[in-house]
Amino acid sequence: MTSPIRLAINGASGRMGRALLSLLREDKRFELVSALVSADSVHNGKPVFVDISASLRQSTDWSAIAADVVIDFSGPDGLAAALMHCKANKIALVTGTTGIDASLQTKLDEAAQHIPLLHAANFSLGVAVLKRLLSEAAAALPDWDLEIIEAHHSRKEDAPSGTALALGHAAAQARGTSLAKDAVYVREGRPGARRSGSIGFAVVRGGDVVGEHTALLLGQGERVELSHRATDRSIFARGALEAAAWLAGKEPGTYHIDDLLQARMPV
Amino acid sequence: MTSPIRLAINGASGRMGRALLSLLREDKRFELVSALVSADSVHNGKPVFVDISASLRQSTDWSAIAADVVIDFSGPDGLAAALMHCKANKIALVTGTTGIDASLQTKLDEAAQHIPLLHAANFSLGVAVLKRLLSEAAAALPDWDLEIIEAHHSRKEDAPSGTALALGHAAAQARGTSLAKDAVYVREGRPGARRSGSIGFAVVRGGDVVGEHTALLLGQGERVELSHRATDRSIFARGALEAAAWLAGKEPGTYHIDDLLQARMPV
Amino acid sequence: MTSPIRLAINGASGRMGRALLSLLREDKRFELVSALVSADSVHNGKPVFVDISASLRQSTDWSAIAADVVIDFSGPDGLAAALMHCKANKIALVTGTTGIDASLQTKLDEAAQHIPLLHAANFSLGVAVLKRLLSEAAAALPDWDLEIIEAHHSRKEDAPSGTALALGHAAAQARGTSLAKDAVYVREGRPGARRSGSIGFAVVRGGDVVGEHTALLLGQGERVELSHRATDRSIFARGALEAAAWLAGKEPGTYHIDDLLQARMPV
Amino acid sequence: MTSPIRLAINGASGRMGRALLSLLREDKRFELVSALVSADSVHNGKPVFVDISASLRQSTDWSAIAADVVIDFSGPDGLAAALMHCKANKIALVTGTTGIDASLQTKLDEAAQHIPLLHAANFSLGVAVLKRLLSEAAAALPDWDLEIIEAHHSRKEDAPSGTALALGHAAAQARGTSLAKDAVYVREGRPGARRSGSIGFAVVRGGDVVGEHTALLLGQGERVELSHRATDRSIFARGALEAAAWLAGKEPGTYHIDDLLQARMPV
Repeated sequence: MTSPIRLAINGASGRMGRALLSLLREDKRFELVSALVSADSVHNGKPVFVDISASLRQSTDWSAIAADVVIDFSGPDGLAAALMHCKANKIALVTGTTGIDASLQTKLDEAAQHIPLLHAANFSLGVAVLKRLLSEAAAALPDWDLEIIEAHHSRKEDAPSGTALALGHAAAQARGTSLAKDAVYVREGRPGARRSGSIGFAVVRGGDVVGEHTALLLGQGERVELSHRATDRSIFARGALEAAAWLAGKEPGTYHIDDLLQARMPV
Repeated sequence: MTSPIRLAINGASGRMGRALLSLLREDKRFELVSALVSADSVHNGKPVFVDISASLRQSTDWSAIAADVVIDFSGPDGLAAALMHCKANKIALVTGTTGIDASLQTKLDEAAQHIPLLHAANFSLGVAVLKRLLSEAAAALPDWDLEIIEAHHSRKEDAPSGTALALGHAAAQARGTSLAKDAVYVREGRPGARRSGSIGFAVVRGGDVVGEHTALLLGQGERVELSHRATDRSIFARGALEAAAWLAGKEPGTYHIDDLLQARMPV
Repeated sequence: MTSPIRLAINGASGRMGRALLSLLREDKRFELVSALVSADSVHNGKPVFVDISASLRQSTDWSAIAADVVIDFSGPDGLAAALMHCKANKIALVTGTTGIDASLQTKLDEAAQHIPLLHAANFSLGVAVLKRLLSEAAAALPDWDLEIIEAHHSRKEDAPSGTALALGHAAAQARGTSLAKDAVYVREGRPGARRSGSIGFAVVRGGDVVGEHTALLLGQGERVELSHRATDRSIFARGALEAAAWLAGKEPGTYHIDDLLQARMPV
Repeated sequence: MTSPIRLAINGASGRMGRALLSLLREDKRFELVSALVSADSVHNGKPVFVDISASLRQSTDWSAIAADVVIDFSGPDGLAAALMHCKANKIALVTGTTGIDASLQTKLDEAAQHIPLLHAANFSLGVAVLKRLLSEAAAALPDWDLEIIEAHHSRKEDAPSGTALALGHAAAQARGTSLAKDAVYVREGRPGARRSGSIGFAVVRGGDVVGEHTALLLGQGERVELSHRATDRSIFARGALEAAAWLAGKEPGTYHIDDLLQARMPV
């Protein structure tokens, strides 16, 4: 039995931070060593879950944090602080912070020469697997018609979902084309026969659907259907923990969720 | 064992006529007594399938036809001729002819006072069942979000399919509204949150999909999905034969596929 | 705007009771007037959700309860107590208590002569709709092959699920047969061709699937698929509230979830 | 525009042979140079489709066949004859013949040192893609519960299907285990909680379903579903043509459908 991975959560009072803390109550792979919030957070100084550790408090202080890996869902400023500490102390960093500008990106790239660093927009392992499989299927069946259907809850305001577009982008790339060139987002009235090579999107909205994505590859007399269904938002926190467990101890460099999957492939 | 139903096919050389003749080779419920084509058809006078009856030829002559039921897929003129003969000889009539104008409709209505008459745009029993079930589900779950997805082969030129619209219409009616008022055909970019009570349509095109329709009723924490999948165009001919077997011997009147289904309901 | 329905929860500290209380925080149809627990409950005397009512406490005392409807998920003893109070005070009663013996059943039947009473094993409205639709489809398509697939989480110990069996039972009944006669639960090795008229069951186990049931009606060249998917256990509490809102004020009698659905059918 | 691939069909009067001939009417990649049947076939000497070539007849004579590739669906004896001719004349060979004994297998292996040779039990490209994707997903998500559902027409006598078992085998292998160790074929009554790491099979039978296979990977809060649906038996002939077009001109060796897919992968 190896000793648990020492983990710090940056952005511990946000939605993702709380989901992570909740999962950590039952995850034996990790020892939670710090839960950091922003300096002006109302959570500053408050205890983390009593049943994790009575002595652990949410804090803004990086000075004494000895961790193997930091998971960051804080924001650009929080990420910049985490980055400095991780780089100085050779701590692996997993981040899902969005809104990263060019200057911060440069810092991320530079830090990745010293520490292992994984940045992702979506930490669902299932979505990452779907994207990978779809890329392969789109290449393996180049003449089959490709369609992407997504379903989300009734409050979602954009369409298609970012994940549907990311799937379509990956498939287009695997076929040597792009969504700009081949995506079809609307079919109504008399759109005419389907253009060969196009990638169609269909959108469903309703209920409290967390998120479902299906890619259809439609051939003559047969088809392949690849779906991901999420029923719980905790999957993003789960995926971040998987990524952290995998990243801790790796060589410096920039990593992606797909590298984690690739490492699991049979040779 | 009762004697078989004497059946005449009007429009025997068309796509539907040929599908009917093909099924009749193995359908013991019927005795094919006539196969009629239009006077100028190249099939006029030609034998029907040799293995049905060596003596039966495709004909334009109604004069000697003694049938229990006529199935018509001929066209407005052919239907008018069939109607006259059926009415005069008390023969049940099943027709899928489209493009019926007001004058012909009046003749149909009048004939239905003398003979049992069933007209349908779609003879798939599965589609008829789906429409019926969807109407009930839409009424039983009035607050659940309703979405309709349809998929067809890549050559289909209109969207959504006529069947998808008919399903949506039935559901709207069951909720006391209409597609004109509540249908949403396009979601792209930033359409905003789903309007409560709306009925969304999503369209998939590709491969050689014969026709698939799914109605989703999306609630909080649960959903109902109702689908019909067609894999063979013969289903329309099958449904017409079902309708003919059921209609033969009925009281005069106008009938619909749904009446056939209703007659099968447990009391 | 009518005044809210006065509701008492019997068995308020159990899993279903807590789910009901949680939903009531946002349900404007009801005013929670009482939350009852068993006399020896540790919750006895404790406040209900502070944000519902600071003054409402969990109690064992029926004496002063003036409600329009009681929802009971307590147990046979708790139900017997609720029954006595409801009958004496003309209060509608919705119960999901299981393990009702013959003696208690007699009391329920007797009480239903004085108050409206609804007892159900499963309060999911979606499941009730699926059962209703499946019965109709099984009757409308008597020659189509019927199969039922269910999926549940990996910890479920019995198979097929009670709901799958209830669906199969309803379908069998609609076809004038029974599961005892026509169910097929196992197919392995060389079971031979499918027996016409049989009802097959297939079982999937894995993950944290809350519960999914699909009935397939498989014809020649077409099929109908009817599914229910639950993603959240709160659906049972939601259904009980729907039932309570509908039952309050009804004539005395024994009611079922299907009566609620029937009342919503278009005429 | 390159010149078409010269193709010979061995076993031209069998079910697969006829399906191949039918597809060749519209496939511009190939020039059909020979259609071979067994010496005692009633088709011997009969013309192939008139609209392919008035002069081409079904024959038993290999002597004058100048082809780039042979597709063989004949049987062990026919395959042995084809093998001799292909090896002597450096012709690529695609075969789907089953019932190959050790002696014939030795000849196949030996021939593969001189010609490109592809043998497959199932030529559906969609099934090959599904198997490949499932192997990857099973490895990428090692802790997710794996279940395989298959559906076939009512006349199918064995269960689960050979394809379902092949999928299960591939997934088990990707996880370093085997079906012998981890497959669960029956769940009825009270099988208890799902054993972690097991691979469950579920079987659906009915209608005229050509063949459907779904692999479910069930995690916590999310799942991946991978399906193949066949609606037409012509897919096996289509796949054999794809294989032949790809194999013609390759280096000598033993090839599999998966090599064809691999060659299409983006680098």
